[in-house]
Amino acid sequence: VALGEQASEATFLRACRRLPVDYTPVWFMRQAGRSLPEYRDLRVPGSILETLRHPELAAEITLQPIRRYGVDAAILYSDIVVPVAAVGFGVEVKPGVGPVVDEPFRSWADLDRLRELEPDQDVPWVQETIRILRRELTVPLIGFAGAPFTVASYLIEGRPSRDHIQTKRLMYEQPELWQRLMERLGQLALTSLRAQVSAGVEAIQLFDSWVGTLSPLDYRSHVLPTTAAIFEGLADLSIPRIHFGVDTGELLGLMAKAGADVVGVDWRVPLDLARDRVGTERAIQGNLDPAVCLSPWDIVAAKAHEVLDSAGGEPGHIFNLGHGVLPDTDPDTMARLVDLVHETTSE
Amino acid sequence: VALGEQASEATFLRACRRLPVDYTPVWFMRQAGRSLPEYRDLRVPGSILETLRHPELAAEITLQPIRRYGVDAAILYSDIVVPVAAVGFGVEVKPGVGPVVDEPFRSWADLDRLRELEPDQDVPWVQETIRILRRELTVPLIGFAGAPFTVASYLIEGRPSRDHIQTKRLMYEQPELWQRLMERLGQLALTSLRAQVSAGVEAIQLFDSWVGTLSPLDYRSHVLPTTAAIFEGLADLSIPRIHFGVDTGELLGLMAKAGADVVGVDWRVPLDLARDRVGTERAIQGNLDPAVCLSPWDIVAAKAHEVLDSAGGEPGHIFNLGHGVLPDTDPDTMARLVDLVHETTSE
Repeated sequence: VALGEQASEATFLRACRRLPVDYTPVWFMRQAGRSLPEYRDLRVPGSILETLRHPELAAEITLQPIRRYGVDAAILYSDIVVPVAAVGFGVEVKPGVGPVVDEPFRSWADLDRLRELEPDQDVPWVQETIRILRRELTVPLIGFAGAPFTVASYLIEGRPSRDHIQTKRLMYEQPELWQRLMERLGQLALTSLRAQVSAGVEAIQLFDSWVGTLSPLDYRSHVLPTTAAIFEGLADLSIPRIHFGVDTGELLGLMAKAGADVVGVDWRVPLDLARDRVGTERAIQGNLDPAVCLSPWDIVAAKAHEVLDSAGGEPGHIFNLGHGVLPDTDPDTMARLVDLVHETTSE
Repeated sequence: VALGEQASEATFLRACRRLPVDYTPVWFMRQAGRSLPEYRDLRVPGSILETLRHPELAAEITLQPIRRYGVDAAILYSDIVVPVAAVGFGVEVKPGVGPVVDEPFRSWADLDRLRELEPDQDVPWVQETIRILRRELTVPLIGFAGAPFTVASYLIEGRPSRDHIQTKRLMYEQPELWQRLMERLGQLALTSLRAQVSAGVEAIQLFDSWVGTLSPLDYRSHVLPTTAAIFEGLADLSIPRIHFGVDTGELLGLMAKAGADVVGVDWRVPLDLARDRVGTERAIQGNLDPAVCLSPWDIVAAKAHEVLDSAGGEPGHIFNLGHGVLPDTDPDTMARLVDLVHETTSE
């Protein structure tokens, strides 16, 4: 990388690398989609998996929050079940529900339903969406994948779950099958992420949204090795790698060990505490409670300042919510929030 | 208390007071009810709120796990919405769903729907159930109440919720109304708990099951004062006071400050870490993952040993699950688990 290029590197990417920045960059998980009236105006029919097959449409949805909010990064409009759906596992995303599977994963035979992903054949529309976005975007584009545990939880439970009972049963009772499933899903995630980078994404996030249901001991034994292999498998690409889950307070140290450059933190853990657990070698991302954003502006502002205070003004903080934007959020609030973070941290 | 009486004090009560015990006592949240075939054989019609009006039946359900498991404490078969239902707020417990409210709490006028509880008039059947149980039981009886935040979350959301959006909105947007609601629900909990103690319970647990959705800052501002007042209001009764919630890893230190004698820990936080946060002046309770109990015995045993190891063999540990017994749990597993804890810790 030439010196001139590095000097003009986007603020978001610099923050991921813990380099000094002129202001704290901001983006929001689920910034695209349901919470935006311009998305609802598109009157997209069917499920997200159908929408994604239309690159111009997926690119437009990705761009909407960039125009409206002035966030410092775009995140590809997609879904964590795209790779497993694309290889034919049999998963659909029901609006208002989430991923559902008619024939949940139960036995060794089900591994055969998870063949390797061939991105150019299986998800050419994803690659095309990214190429369109790279032409249109003025901020970095984040690609993403679901982490093996979280994707497995959908395949095994058959639908969103609170207790993840069947997932844990398989993990405990059939540890070899579990290990193979993790490896298979890890390979799918890695292949998907590498293809996204090839097509033009400049950072990636691995969503292990539901892994916080595990104790640290279980995380270390049953999840960490595969997650570490994914991050290791991306190391040669020299792009920032973000790792996120909710309810992960006790896992943050282990998630840092898994090798991401940035660790996302949910709203339960104050960022100074998160920093202690993650260590100083990684950036941190977060962590305003998404529910706060449904309140009047004064409250949102006060809470955003709490987040910035707990981040301590050190390099290596990317402002985000502690989980995705809630559907009923007022877009004006999110626009003002971006301004607040930019203005407060550039003073 | 005479010397002889103290010497014969039940193991569970001694552990709550961090006194040396011959073995680690065990009980399970939700040990009574759906997971037991003898409960299902009773074919109790209607909702739990109807069942509770029949003291002989509620006492029988409370006793079933004592007979079957040999646990060291009984917990009154009841529900955290009993006091608010009894004063006429308009709440029902739907089987398979949980508490539902037709007209959720929204405004100052709704405070009038929460008059003070008069236990002898409003819930005489609870008092009678406790009196029956004290005659029948050979182990201590734990009474309980829902903590203000968790009860409020049902009254405000109108049904079980994952994001607690409306609850947080009211908390942030109408802090004075929130404070009055907390005080009102705190008074209901305190009155209910004092009446339960009068009727014969020998320990109490305050369930703040869903408070882990709050950040420590919010917990401290909006919840801790009322919770502390409840525990303070019980101090003269000299009975062990237990405080429990899930997802409370970051709140454990503050929950300890609220004044309970025992802090319950969910399965996410290893007990040695929980001990660091709670401090040495309180006992700790927990924390086997309830989902583990659906696995074959060898796995349950290994995981139970992990819990005992992380408790470190110090006085002041009560073995429990990290949340309630799941409905599909095999009762034989729970019986063996009690034996394992007793045998392992009496060696």
